[in-house]
Amino acid sequence: MTDPLQHVLAAARGDEPADLLITGGRVVNLFTREVEETEVAIAGGRVVGFGPHEATAEHDVDGGFVLPGYLDPHVHLESAMVTPRELARAVVPRGTSTVVTDAHEIANVHGVEGVEWMLKATEGLPLDVFFMLPSCVPATPLETSGAELTAHDLARWVDHPRVLGLGEVMNIAGAIGGDAEVLAKIRASRGRVDGHAVGLTGHSLETYLAAGVESDHEATTLAEGLERVRLGMHVMVREGTTERNLAALLPMLHGPAAERCMFCTDDRHPHDLLGAGHLDDVLRQAVAGGLDPLVAIRLATRLPARYFELHRRGAIAPGFVADVVVVGDLERFEARRVYKRGRLVARDGELCVDLPPAPPAPGGSVSVTWGGLADLRVPAPPGSIVRAIRALPDQILTIEERVAPAVVDGLAVSDAERDLLKMAVVERHHGSGRVGVGFVRGFGLRAGALASSVAHDSHNLIAVGLHDEDIAAAIDAVAELGGGLAVVVDGAVRAALPLPVAGLMSDRPLAEVVAGLEALLAQARALGGGLPDPFMTLSFLALAPVPALRLTDRGLVDGARFEHVPLFVEEAPCSSPSPPIASIR
Amino acid sequence: MTDPLQHVLAAARGDEPADLLITGGRVVNLFTREVEETEVAIAGGRVVGFGPHEATAEHDVDGGFVLPGYLDPHVHLESAMVTPRELARAVVPRGTSTVVTDAHEIANVHGVEGVEWMLKATEGLPLDVFFMLPSCVPATPLETSGAELTAHDLARWVDHPRVLGLGEVMNIAGAIGGDAEVLAKIRASRGRVDGHAVGLTGHSLETYLAAGVESDHEATTLAEGLERVRLGMHVMVREGTTERNLAALLPMLHGPAAERCMFCTDDRHPHDLLGAGHLDDVLRQAVAGGLDPLVAIRLATRLPARYFELHRRGAIAPGFVADVVVVGDLERFEARRVYKRGRLVARDGELCVDLPPAPPAPGGSVSVTWGGLADLRVPAPPGSIVRAIRALPDQILTIEERVAPAVVDGLAVSDAERDLLKMAVVERHHGSGRVGVGFVRGFGLRAGALASSVAHDSHNLIAVGLHDEDIAAAIDAVAELGGGLAVVVDGAVRAALPLPVAGLMSDRPLAEVVAGLEALLAQARALGGGLPDPFMTLSFLALAPVPALRLTDRGLVDGARFEHVPLFVEEAPCSSPSPPIASIR
Repeated sequence: MTDPLQHVLAAARGDEPADLLITGGRVVNLFTREVEETEVAIAGGRVVGFGPHEATAEHDVDGGFVLPGYLDPHVHLESAMVTPRELARAVVPRGTSTVVTDAHEIANVHGVEGVEWMLKATEGLPLDVFFMLPSCVPATPLETSGAELTAHDLARWVDHPRVLGLGEVMNIAGAIGGDAEVLAKIRASRGRVDGHAVGLTGHSLETYLAAGVESDHEATTLAEGLERVRLGMHVMVREGTTERNLAALLPMLHGPAAERCMFCTDDRHPHDLLGAGHLDDVLRQAVAGGLDPLVAIRLATRLPARYFELHRRGAIAPGFVADVVVVGDLERFEARRVYKRGRLVARDGELCVDLPPAPPAPGGSVSVTWGGLADLRVPAPPGSIVRAIRALPDQILTIEERVAPAVVDGLAVSDAERDLLKMAVVERHHGSGRVGVGFVRGFGLRAGALASSVAHDSHNLIAVGLHDEDIAAAIDAVAELGGGLAVVVDGAVRAALPLPVAGLMSDRPLAEVVAGLEALLAQARALGGGLPDPFMTLSFLALAPVPALRLTDRGLVDGARFEHVPLFVEEAPCSSPSPPIASIR
Repeated sequence: MTDPLQHVLAAARGDEPADLLITGGRVVNLFTREVEETEVAIAGGRVVGFGPHEATAEHDVDGGFVLPGYLDPHVHLESAMVTPRELARAVVPRGTSTVVTDAHEIANVHGVEGVEWMLKATEGLPLDVFFMLPSCVPATPLETSGAELTAHDLARWVDHPRVLGLGEVMNIAGAIGGDAEVLAKIRASRGRVDGHAVGLTGHSLETYLAAGVESDHEATTLAEGLERVRLGMHVMVREGTTERNLAALLPMLHGPAAERCMFCTDDRHPHDLLGAGHLDDVLRQAVAGGLDPLVAIRLATRLPARYFELHRRGAIAPGFVADVVVVGDLERFEARRVYKRGRLVARDGELCVDLPPAPPAPGGSVSVTWGGLADLRVPAPPGSIVRAIRALPDQILTIEERVAPAVVDGLAVSDAERDLLKMAVVERHHGSGRVGVGFVRGFGLRAGALASSVAHDSHNLIAVGLHDEDIAAAIDAVAELGGGLAVVVDGAVRAALPLPVAGLMSDRPLAEVVAGLEALLAQARALGGGLPDPFMTLSFLALAPVPALRLTDRGLVDGARFEHVPLFVEEAPCSSPSPPIASIR
């Protein structure tokens, strides 16, 4: 067989026609920040040169701007709640060519088998999917996950051609404290080591970096962003569905610090992906916020590619992979055409190639044996004070509040008037019957209950509601679905969405999932409150390694100190935030 | 044994004293381009944090600027004409912490054994020496080298921890033409692929990039520099002894293109290293030329480190290798103190640590069997025209000129009046007796002859002179030295410098070598001409892969077309430059 590179070189020399010549475009040069009206020649899936070339096909793009395909350096595919195939159908037509994913959601459910499924499910797509190996499965010892991945387990993938390093090191205390297993995972990585430096600053942040962590996507303030860049950390400016940090960090992107930054989405819910979009949405927002479009594009293309040592991606240049997006302007970033390795794969927002079938998902992931109502009882002596989680809209952080719960017949119960609702986390992987019960503020439900099998990072069943009966019924409904989301009112299931793949993803097309979710959210919103997406908010309340207060199947967790705390406190009620959350020591 | 990282982390946390605290300094931050008055704490050879720390030792640097150590991304150590140990003694006190070398000079003489010697000779120094594997030994098939290194030979070093990729691909025609052996070497590289794109432009340059080449250090004009950056090539702005490109390329370093650039020295002669300096000299010149000092420092530190994926070098930041230079100001860049991995290794221009002994050099490298005077005879019919090499001061490029030689008794001879001197290249590795003879302009000698065993890249014996007798005597003198440089006048050796290590390097301290060279250059300059360093100029006249005209032991070479050309031409005399040299095809 002829070496395919020979065709690339022959086309570059002009000895053979190129496969494609893109004409009539304004080509964005990210190295010099210039826009040039010229042709782009492509052969063998790579850009081979500029200017006139003989070519087998010519595409006139009619004055469109020719950009490299976008690269998302940190995304959890599972958050799209569809399989990677359906995600590709949604984001490729918007210009996304490459994503780097940390499959730690499915890994927390299915372990090695889950990661293997994700590797298979991302083959043959018009979207290149690279992987960071999940570093924290389980995220903490403070909860029960479906599987554990040790440094030894990760070793099997270290040399995989689509593995680029170690995923976000959420065991902050372990990294800073020099935990042998955490350091073993960092050292075994052949590539980058992503961080997750929630609230870290000063010597704690310096120590986290000294341990080998290189990036962070959890900066939420300009001060945090600047401190990270000053210390040499790579900052992924995250604009997800729940966590939106672009506006706060934008000011530092006008200066030299931008060279140490990139855009990412981390977690975007399906309706957000279908509506606002993916990195195209981040670009729009950044430019609307005043950022030089060429800097913004660089943050979505070349800079993440460079971070991951993908040396020939993220720009339009000879030898570079011919992932190309043609947009009408540099404000709206509406993708007219998307090319993957030189092949036209999307036009005017629609994919125009077939996708391979998704591989069969691993077996049933929900195994629940619990005591139902009895497990939700919280005996409370008069005058009791509980630690309650304050959920914040558009924030992954929570606040700890201390409140006197409503007590009925010696049992602490939800109190709609004060927006203090009972919540529960039921272990769903091993049928252990373990149940954590707590209280949460910020949902504002006036009736019913919500339950979900999506509960970062261990993805046990999580529920919140006004009456124990509805909470129990909602949990049972999700268990019966084999994973999914449910809204229950007065014991009856009002709406449900099955998520048969690991209890995290649907096996249906994205449009169906969005329709199902919309129906579900309509029902949920009808119960009161006003959270933009109560299921998304719910899904982060069990995220043990993030400050301040969380609930797992093993009970309440102080996410800053990485330790369990009791539900009841021995002091006077107050409603002030807990002490500063940044210091780990 | 305790994991040394535990001490790093404990010092970063503040649980143990740091090894060193640098106080009273102004720390240059290359990520945000800021200067901050703060302390730098170091432990276990790494920076662990900023601000006050307990530490075992404190060094007050009295308002000095604290910079990362400099990194030269492309240097041939052999050009210093001393062993790496003596080179370290010269450049470390000036602030150089790391160099990336392509040992292709010694490889052309001693092959595998030469590279192995260089690896050993660079161990244990206060200078980190990384390697690019020599891609072109021999540089071309148009000459005779001491050894050949195939892709198979290089494989033994690909995973060596100090090997960062493939050295400058000088076989431009091979890369562009898709030569299987050249592509095999490029593909076998686990790291970067350095280029050598002399005169390349347009589709030829694009094809060279498409073949996998990533950098170039041969841009001599602003247009060349900008074209390379536009095409995504990494540009090493070279400021060597003979080749000085900083002034021409400086304008593009003020803008975004700088992010794709870095400084290098390529080849610096010993007297230049001792006098002007190394990268400190480049920094001085760049700032004197108007470049923002923080941009200049970035080009000498972080940017080359980033190019080579040395992610934790080239900046002062937590986790980074504690290679630190303290300078008095950002204009003169006089190094007051130099730290290597946190250890003080130089003060006020003097090394303050012991160096390990150099390993024994490979055996005798000069084996000459030739016909002497008889081999230098050039029979020339009346009216003959020869191709003559025009040597250019401060340039590696040459020009081809066509001239009628002086003819005496039917033999072409040197003609001092018209500065047309005879030169010869005598094969010295295998005793083959092969001799190439030609003519050169630009030396302006009025008497005597010069000879050298330093003749890029095959390092045969090269000589130039007014009379055949002196040329022959000079070649014999260098052969008798076992390699070195010699000046001969009227058959007598006026000055000589032995270079016993591969005929390229002295085994003596740098000061002795410089003194010897100065004596030699004084004698050489006394012969007329006015070239700043006639031996340096001479050493490039056999460099076959560089335009325009060269002389090897196999005869004249067209360095742009990679082919031999005859000495005599069949046309009218002219003195114009050869046609444009850029196009390879």
